[in-house]
Parts: sequence; C-alpha cells; structure tokens
Amino acid sequence: MACKKISLLQTARFLKRNDHFVILTHASPDGDTLGSACALAMGLQKIGKRAYVVCPDPVPKKFDYFMKKLRNRAFKYKNVIAVDIADEALLGSLKDEFGGKVNLCIDHHVSNTGYAENLFLDASASATAECVFAILKVIHAVIDDTIAAALYTGISTDTGCFKYSNVTARTFDIAGRLFAYNINAAEINRIMFDTKSKNRLEMEKLVLDTAEFHFDEKCMILSVTEEIQKKTKCSGSELEGVAAISRSVEGVLAGVTIKESEKNVFKISLRTYEPLDAANICGRLGGGGHRAAAGCTVNGSLDEVKEKILASVKQELEEANAGAYTD
Amino acid sequence: MACKKISLLQTARFLKRNDHFVILTHASPDGDTLGSACALAMGLQKIGKRAYVVCPDPVPKKFDYFMKKLRNRAFKYKNVIAVDIADEALLGSLKDEFGGKVNLCIDHHVSNTGYAENLFLDASASATAECVFAILKVIHAVIDDTIAAALYTGISTDTGCFKYSNVTARTFDIAGRLFAYNINAAEINRIMFDTKSKNRLEMEKLVLDTAEFHFDEKCMILSVTEEIQKKTKCSGSELEGVAAISRSVEGVLAGVTIKESEKNVFKISLRTYEPLDAANICGRLGGGGHRAAAGCTVNGSLDEVKEKILASVKQELEEANAGAYTD
Repeated sequence: MACKKISLLQTARFLKRNDHFVILTHASPDGDTLGSACALAMGLQKIGKRAYVVCPDPVPKKFDYFMKKLRNRAFKYKNVIAVDIADEALLGSLKDEFGGKVNLCIDHHVSNTGYAENLFLDASASATAECVFAILKVIHAVIDDTIAAALYTGISTDTGCFKYSNVTARTFDIAGRLFAYNINAAEINRIMFDTKSKNRLEMEKLVLDTAEFHFDEKCMILSVTEEIQKKTKCSGSELEGVAAISRSVEGVLAGVTIKESEKNVFKISLRTYEPLDAANICGRLGGGGHRAAAGCTVNGSLDEVKEKILASVKQELEEANAGAYTD
Repeated sequence: MACKKISLLQTARFLKRNDHFVILTHASPDGDTLGSACALAMGLQKIGKRAYVVCPDPVPKKFDYFMKKLRNRAFKYKNVIAVDIADEALLGSLKDEFGGKVNLCIDHHVSNTGYAENLFLDASASATAECVFAILKVIHAVIDDTIAAALYTGISTDTGCFKYSNVTARTFDIAGRLFAYNINAAEINRIMFDTKSKNRLEMEKLVLDTAEFHFDEKCMILSVTEEIQKKTKCSGSELEGVAAISRSVEGVLAGVTIKESEKNVFKISLRTYEPLDAANICGRLGGGGHRAAAGCTVNGSLDEVKEKILASVKQELEEANAGAYTD
C-alpha cells in the first residue's frame, strides 16, 4: 500500500475517529519505543479508547516503573499503530502477524521506509516520545505521572540524557513540562545510564585490556573476543557501550571496536572525528555508514582483521593529512 | 563583617550602582564557577561596566571556548564578587588577597558560610549559572553566543548533563532559552563528559582490576593505590570519577573507593543506596557526610583499612537488615 504522510492534526483525527488499537514497539526495545507506546496506550485509554501494547521481545525489567502500570490486556484489534519503528524489519518476531498491516506509524527517524498506511514523521524530534507528547496534547488526553515518566524516559534515553546533537529547545521545553508531574527523573537516569551488571563491568575491564594504539595514538582498537563474551555472558545491548569507549580517549581520531560474531567473522564498529570519514574507511572493506560512525564485517583471524582495518584507517589518515603514517 | 542576604533585584541594583568588579572563581575550577564568572563579566561589560575574572588555579584548556573570548585585563578593582564559592577556604591561593573582602557572593550552595558582605543565594538553582542567567536578564545585559555557551556549560556540568536530582523545570527552561543562541551543546558535552585522557583510561582499568565484592556482592571496593596513581600520573579531578564506578554496579548497596593519599593514609569515599546510611558507616571511622555519600580518612596498611571499612559496612548492613552477614 502507498504510504500517506500525515500531519499532527490528521494523526489526532485518526486516533479520535478510530478505536481498538494495538500498539507495536520495535525489537530489542529501548526506552523510546517502550515509553512512547506505553504513553500513547495510556493516553488513548484516558480518552475512552481501547489500546494495548505488544513488544516483539521480552521487555527488560528496568522499564517496569511504567510498563507495569499499563492496563495491557489483549483484545481483537482493529487498528495497528507502530511507534519508533523506522522499518518493518524491526518488527522482528511480530513481522509475520503485522507486516503490511500497520495503519499508523509515529516516528522520528528520517530514514523511515514508509511501510505504513499513514505516517506521522517528525524528524526534528529528538525522540518519538516528543511526537507522542504533542499528540496527547492535541487529543486532549490528560497526562498523569506514569505517562510523564514514560515520555521522559523516551526523551532521556534517545538523547543520552540531553547530551547529543538531536536535542533542541523543544526537547527542553517538553522535559520541563514533564517535570510538573511526579517523576523521579534522577532515579530514572540512574537506572538508564549509571547502572551496569557485574558481568558488564568485567567485560569492560577485559576489553580495556585489549586496547591498542596506532599511528601516533590517533587510532585505538578494542577487541571484544568470543572468549570475553563467553566469560562475561555479555551480548547484544551490553556490548553496545564499548564503541563509545573507543571514541572517548583524548587525541584518538579513529576508535575501532572489533567484535567476534562467529569463528573468523568480525563486526567492526568505527567512530571517527574530523578530518576522518568513517564511511570511507569501512566502505573500503565492504561496509558503510555515516561520516562519524560506520561499520563493516570482515572475515579472517583477529590479527588479519586488525591488519585490514588498520590499513584502511592509515589510508584515510594519509589522505586527510597528506602525510605518511608508520605504525 | 555581617553577611546580608539579598534578593535578585537587590543584586541587580548592586551591580548597576557599582563598577570596577573583580570576579573570583573557586579553586580547582569547574564548569559552573568558570561559566558563571565568565558570563557575569561579559554581561557586565555589555552594560558598560569594567569587570575581569581571577581564578586561584590554572584554567583547564577545555574551557578555552568561552574563557579565551573574555576580555580579561586586570585593573584596580573596587568591588569583589565571588561566584559559586560556598566557603572562603575555596578561594585557595586567592584567600590572602581577597579573604574578608568579598562584597557580593552569588551562589547556589545551601552550605554557603555567609562570608561575604552581600549574599545572593538561590539553593533551588541547579547551578550558579542559573542565578547568573537571572541576574543578566534583570540588569538587561544582552546575552550573546559566548555568554550562552558559558552559562550552558555551568548548568550542564553541575547537573551531570541534566542527570541529577538538582534539575528542575526552571533548569530546562533556561537550557531551552540558551538553545536560541549558537552554542554547540553536543560538542560541549562531549568535551565535558565523554573525553578522557589515555592515562585516565589506564587508571580506570587498573582500578577495576582491584575490584572486590563482599557480603553477597552488596559491597564493592575499589582501590586507587599510590602505585596506580604514579603509574598513570592521575590525580585530583581525574580520580574523582572512580567513586561513580563503585556505585554503578547492579545490586551493590555500598560502593567503597579507597585512595592512598600518602604512605599508610587512605581516603575513603563511600556511596550507598537505601537502606544503608553512608554517614553512619563513615562516622564510625571518624568521618561524615550525607546519607548517600560520605567519606573518612583511615590510617594503616591497605588491608587494615579495608578491614576497618568492611567491619563498619557489615554493621550497617546487619542493622539495616536485622540479619548477620558473613564474608
């Protein structure tokens, strides 16, 4: 079906005119997809509609403080809403049931593939929760403490606690309004940003032990070997933070994280600063991405993989600085 | 001299009626004292006053993006202003010259000792920069991009980038207004929060290697030995982040950081969660502090010091849970 881009008011009209909504989150759910889905479901319930939330994966316990407060009994739905889902592939285990059936998508990803019948997309929003806040205002759904906590969680998690470049004056405006409610923002932030498992701490320590510096310390490599992953039982989202470490060291222009995904297959995450272009470096190895963040998959032994990515980083450094680098 | 608590309007009147201001920051200057001092000096210059900033310690280079833009030539001052300085002792190397001579103190610390002739104290402000923002508005000083960046830096650094419990709706309101200016907030935050020296990274790794867990992993101890400090050349502010690690591990109720300050003298930083009281635990060892954060200095070998703090943590755990703990 063709995707119709609709405005905030059209979105509100859709919600007012229809009923019996099932609201979908994306796979590996994060604070924004869950916070947005929960706030929207609760808001719809406040104006007398029936709504429930379905998540393709188990909901992490750390989101209980709002997810557990949602009346979430399933029923025979008539309308399917996707929140914070840029691509149908992100429906994960729900794709079989809901693929091609999404009536309304609410999103802030500029990359949204337009798979839904109706799309309310605000790419200037730092989080889908910003869009949901606006929608709840327009449909006159009364925001309560739990809805405020859910929306705050979405905004806070998608902005790295107001740290990233996606924050705008509107982000602060909405966050300030949410502070009128009884939300324990500091505690939410502690759970979201300053809590890690003992395994994760152990993993970080072992990964730091692998740190290598090259090219006058302009390139740092961290290796997350199969052995480290097994020993610390860390996977998926727990490994995500590692790439951030590789770009946090003063003077490093190329932070490389090499993760063993299976025997002799390594996924490389690259973070760069000017004048280096991460997409160039990974592009030469069959990958791609953006100027400051890119990735690729490289086969071989860990040493071979390191050699390949280092050669590409070296080429980029030499082209950017018009000088030769020796290691 | 007696300290007179004055209002925002009285503060504005003081600034309007007087001239030739020297503005003091506290020792080991941080983003709030520097951002507030720089913004106030620039704001006063905008309304035709003469003002310059003096800092008791060298200003870290990372604050150059606003400090270097300040016209900061010294002259014969007539009025002394202290910003973000709760106690005269924090004047450090400036105490000899300015002790007992501060005409106006602008601060947000509830613990302010009232050493100044006039005190504008707003303990509900997350940062002194919030107070300075209000003052600049009232004296009709035009805020420009640099002033906005300086004020944003003060607020962001004192709130852990809007993460802590000192954030209020007003904090967000001011931050949103500062976003009307051309400030590169994401880059400021990267410099302030996500940049560490290679030595600091090495220090963290070595400190993580010392991690010990006790009492069903409810207590974690990190040791920053003299050896680690020497090897990584880390001191002062670079060591501060370690205490945050000790409280970030899931399930840990008492995070202990033991720092060797000289041979057989150890400074203990303690962070606790409910139901433990950090002040109780450190109080038994001659220290003190708050319920969630306290400290003490203990003499002895590292092992002896660990034994002492563990005994006090154990007592607190047993009293809180009415049960015995074995290690």
